[in-house]
Amino acid sequence: MANSKFEYVKQFEQPDSLLPNTWIVVRLDGRGFTKFSTKYAFEKPNDKRALDLMNAAARSVMSELPDITIAYGVSDEYSFVFHKSCTLFERRASKLVSTIVSTFTAYYIHHWPTYFVDGPPLSPPLPSFDGRAVCYPSVQNLRDYMSWRQVDCHINNLYNTTFWALINQGGMDGTAAELMLKGTFSADKNEILFKKFGINYNNEPEMFKKGSVVFRNYELVEPGTKKVSEEEAEEMSSSAVPEVKSKSQVEKDKKVRTKAKIVVEHLDIIRDEFWERRPWLLSGTPGKVPKEP
Amino acid sequence: MANSKFEYVKQFEQPDSLLPNTWIVVRLDGRGFTKFSTKYAFEKPNDKRALDLMNAAARSVMSELPDITIAYGVSDEYSFVFHKSCTLFERRASKLVSTIVSTFTAYYIHHWPTYFVDGPPLSPPLPSFDGRAVCYPSVQNLRDYMSWRQVDCHINNLYNTTFWALINQGGMDGTAAELMLKGTFSADKNEILFKKFGINYNNEPEMFKKGSVVFRNYELVEPGTKKVSEEEAEEMSSSAVPEVKSKSQVEKDKKVRTKAKIVVEHLDIIRDEFWERRPWLLSGTPGKVPKEP
Amino acid sequence: MANSKFEYVKQFEQPDSLLPNTWIVVRLDGRGFTKFSTKYAFEKPNDKRALDLMNAAARSVMSELPDITIAYGVSDEYSFVFHKSCTLFERRASKLVSTIVSTFTAYYIHHWPTYFVDGPPLSPPLPSFDGRAVCYPSVQNLRDYMSWRQVDCHINNLYNTTFWALINQGGMDGTAAELMLKGTFSADKNEILFKKFGINYNNEPEMFKKGSVVFRNYELVEPGTKKVSEEEAEEMSSSAVPEVKSKSQVEKDKKVRTKAKIVVEHLDIIRDEFWERRPWLLSGTPGKVPKEP
Amino acid sequence: MANSKFEYVKQFEQPDSLLPNTWIVVRLDGRGFTKFSTKYAFEKPNDKRALDLMNAAARSVMSELPDITIAYGVSDEYSFVFHKSCTLFERRASKLVSTIVSTFTAYYIHHWPTYFVDGPPLSPPLPSFDGRAVCYPSVQNLRDYMSWRQVDCHINNLYNTTFWALINQGGMDGTAAELMLKGTFSADKNEILFKKFGINYNNEPEMFKKGSVVFRNYELVEPGTKKVSEEEAEEMSSSAVPEVKSKSQVEKDKKVRTKAKIVVEHLDIIRDEFWERRPWLLSGTPGKVPKEP
Repeated sequence: MANSKFEYVKQFEQPDSLLPNTWIVVRLDGRGFTKFSTKYAFEKPNDKRALDLMNAAARSVMSELPDITIAYGVSDEYSFVFHKSCTLFERRASKLVSTIVSTFTAYYIHHWPTYFVDGPPLSPPLPSFDGRAVCYPSVQNLRDYMSWRQVDCHINNLYNTTFWALINQGGMDGTAAELMLKGTFSADKNEILFKKFGINYNNEPEMFKKGSVVFRNYELVEPGTKKVSEEEAEEMSSSAVPEVKSKSQVEKDKKVRTKAKIVVEHLDIIRDEFWERRPWLLSGTPGKVPKEP
Repeated sequence: MANSKFEYVKQFEQPDSLLPNTWIVVRLDGRGFTKFSTKYAFEKPNDKRALDLMNAAARSVMSELPDITIAYGVSDEYSFVFHKSCTLFERRASKLVSTIVSTFTAYYIHHWPTYFVDGPPLSPPLPSFDGRAVCYPSVQNLRDYMSWRQVDCHINNLYNTTFWALINQGGMDGTAAELMLKGTFSADKNEILFKKFGINYNNEPEMFKKGSVVFRNYELVEPGTKKVSEEEAEEMSSSAVPEVKSKSQVEKDKKVRTKAKIVVEHLDIIRDEFWERRPWLLSGTPGKVPKEP
Repeated sequence: MANSKFEYVKQFEQPDSLLPNTWIVVRLDGRGFTKFSTKYAFEKPNDKRALDLMNAAARSVMSELPDITIAYGVSDEYSFVFHKSCTLFERRASKLVSTIVSTFTAYYIHHWPTYFVDGPPLSPPLPSFDGRAVCYPSVQNLRDYMSWRQVDCHINNLYNTTFWALINQGGMDGTAAELMLKGTFSADKNEILFKKFGINYNNEPEMFKKGSVVFRNYELVEPGTKKVSEEEAEEMSSSAVPEVKSKSQVEKDKKVRTKAKIVVEHLDIIRDEFWERRPWLLSGTPGKVPKEP
Repeated sequence: MANSKFEYVKQFEQPDSLLPNTWIVVRLDGRGFTKFSTKYAFEKPNDKRALDLMNAAARSVMSELPDITIAYGVSDEYSFVFHKSCTLFERRASKLVSTIVSTFTAYYIHHWPTYFVDGPPLSPPLPSFDGRAVCYPSVQNLRDYMSWRQVDCHINNLYNTTFWALINQGGMDGTAAELMLKGTFSADKNEILFKKFGINYNNEPEMFKKGSVVFRNYELVEPGTKKVSEEEAEEMSSSAVPEVKSKSQVEKDKKVRTKAKIVVEHLDIIRDEFWERRPWLLSGTPGKVPKEP
């Protein structure tokens, strides 16, 4: 065929499959969102519409890619987790990253008018996201990654809440507010909020304080009843060859997953409880679909 | 800081910078576009609206990322080329790929109503794209890559044009048409088109036959006048250290690039002429902005 | 400095650090050892001198690189294992592989006259080895790797023992022997050995049947007493951040390791017992140095 | 087969083929040679025996691996260059690096007694080398790499020659000599050598000043006659698909290469002349074997 003369250029494609039996995290970040959020007058320190839109996009990504186990979002970033046994796209990094980033972007643009009802419509330059994939060998590494993002959320939100209170309610300018917060600890910021502005940080919305976690929901497991501890999860997932499930089992799992509702919650994902009550997140096996009330 | 306990997880990020002094091609492809094109009743074998939309998205990508030298699109795929001296995002593969794919997707969704005026609005599942980056060490390798895509365009379009003529005008079903075309050569297909349906393939729209090439337009160089041959281009770009231009030169180049019009054309990019008349594509130095008429 | 003009070429070096928190196995293989073993008249199916030389070289490698936890050798190949917490050479693949292969080769050449006392001295082309590194995320994956090599040893040795018995004692030529063994199972080969040649395969030397395992020796742990199960090992090694040991602890560990004797044994490394009685192999913490008798 | 249960571990091997159409440089370095050279009382600043041994080992590597085009060595390091069209070992980095490092080490150990005739025999810890591979896309990049190493050789040798003259002839201790040379330029060092010790640096041995370059020797090409310029070399090597030579041509080339003498010389490899007179180094096509006198 005439084409063969040039086809040799395919040889330059280099494989980029990620190490098997490791958890894959794809994190995406908004590009130039400081400027973008100014253009569309995002509320400070948190714009509920913008966060709801991020969550809606994330939920759509999870719905289109059932291989994703859990996602966690804060501000203009979102992390998507594939189970260590995942073989989607032969675990090719660029394919996994680009698919998630593209799908997320599509829904972000598409849902924009639903969440920014009264604002101006989107106009170029449009919002966009970049992303990357990272592998985590153990459950502990994965959970530490998730904890890292949630601690980051907390630290940033406490800072931003105080910073914007000083500006919006305290009448300071940005430089003065920054100077005032320099070197302060959490306790200091809590006190400023409370003493100066009567704000009890604990009463701030959970979404702002904890970020958003997205997952398929099944019946919660009572702690103590059928606890799947980290070690067991590790053990389960470390058995020789990601156990090949029978075809009928795979089909059954898929059906259960499709039925499962994808929820967006604002929970503490650092403590064990979250994971112990939702053993399906680490085991890779769907739980029990809750009965309709 | 409280965060430091978990921050160690950052160590798991692995560098993915692409080899310096090589041409970077990022190609994106529509995901599941067979199904998608059926849902929105794309015309067969080519839907002008869909191709115009692809081209509009590609032009927007180039406009937002001035580091892109040239792009080539056909069907639901698009290739974007970065000059070998490019240092955008430190040449990190995942960042380059995800940024292009996300930006492209954003404009594709955004411009949809402009191009599909009478059709139904987009609804989930939304169109999305995946992508990957490939490095080409020499100008010849790069041009062979571009030629590969354009030859592919030609082969597929001739096949599809004949196939759909057999179905739409010839009343065949898909299986019969496929059977009839099996083992045929280009000449056979040309003859079928002409004898059976009075179609002269040469008169088909250039966009269908050649695909679309997108680039910044400057004054064409007369062949022979100031020919920049491949060898010279190679030489220019192979000099020690991607020559560090002075800051003022970089600024000047940038201004010229911003003024330059991004055009979408349907030209033969296999022959030397295309490249010889547009030396800026391979040299990485912007040409002369044409005077307004 | 005059050198700076060219120093940019350092930018082309690409990082190759292996994923943290994974077990690193470096396996080396003899290059062209079929020809080499003929040149020096290795005994078939096993040449004790050649295996002892491999083992001596491996022991020297372990002695020079205390970061190596365990090694396993069979025929002309040797696998060296670094603990998942290892940070030697920043885990750079090429540095780890080249250092092990070079050190191994040096001792192989150096010790040759000690093991091949009566044979001709080495002459060009000299024996050499190639190598590669592979990462294994879980203890189970690592143990499966080790089991894979030992099963391979068993399968090959049973085959070779029978094959060479047919030739050396049975008077067959290679082709006839090969044909006879085609499609046979282990039981068949055992029977051929026993019935035809009065060889009880079980009485063959352990080194031939099981290969050689090299490790630092400490006091064995009584099974049941202080069992360190796989799960515990996994857990231990999966805790957040490869626990940074105190400097004095690292020094103490180092001293213990230096005192420990490196042994070469021929044991079953597939069954749990081997690992349970030597918890230091998976925990990464040296055991108790046995008292001198 | 019994083995299949564990064979899945092979999936963890990750491909490491180097980008096609790029020059591959494998550089090896002595490990801990400061200590090693003290142990065997190497002469300072240069030990002719040690350098001759390095060169002998490099020559043997080139003789065993005809794919190597040229090598350059200085002190305890050696760089081996594969032509950009090379496909040895499918261009796998670990295989290329480990093979070269192992072969080099083997000959270094083997030839030791030939070069260190009067010294003590080698004893553990034995000398060893580590290595890495780097890709260079253009001829210019490759030549700049070679120039970088030769400039480094010159700078270090001038420094070391002066440093050791101050110590050996000038009676200084190391600290005083270091202090004296701090901040000096080449001219200063030349002057110190000449004025203080009557040493004309230009008369120092070429091997010390220029390092050693190893290559297959053919008839030199008269400059101007059939000059193969850099640009032409670039062009030649940048044509589509590393031109597949006919089998008989490959065989013929191989024969010519085997006949060619591998020489070790001490020439300026920075200037064009070296490369212009030896066009086979960059073209990848062997030259004319010189007639025996």
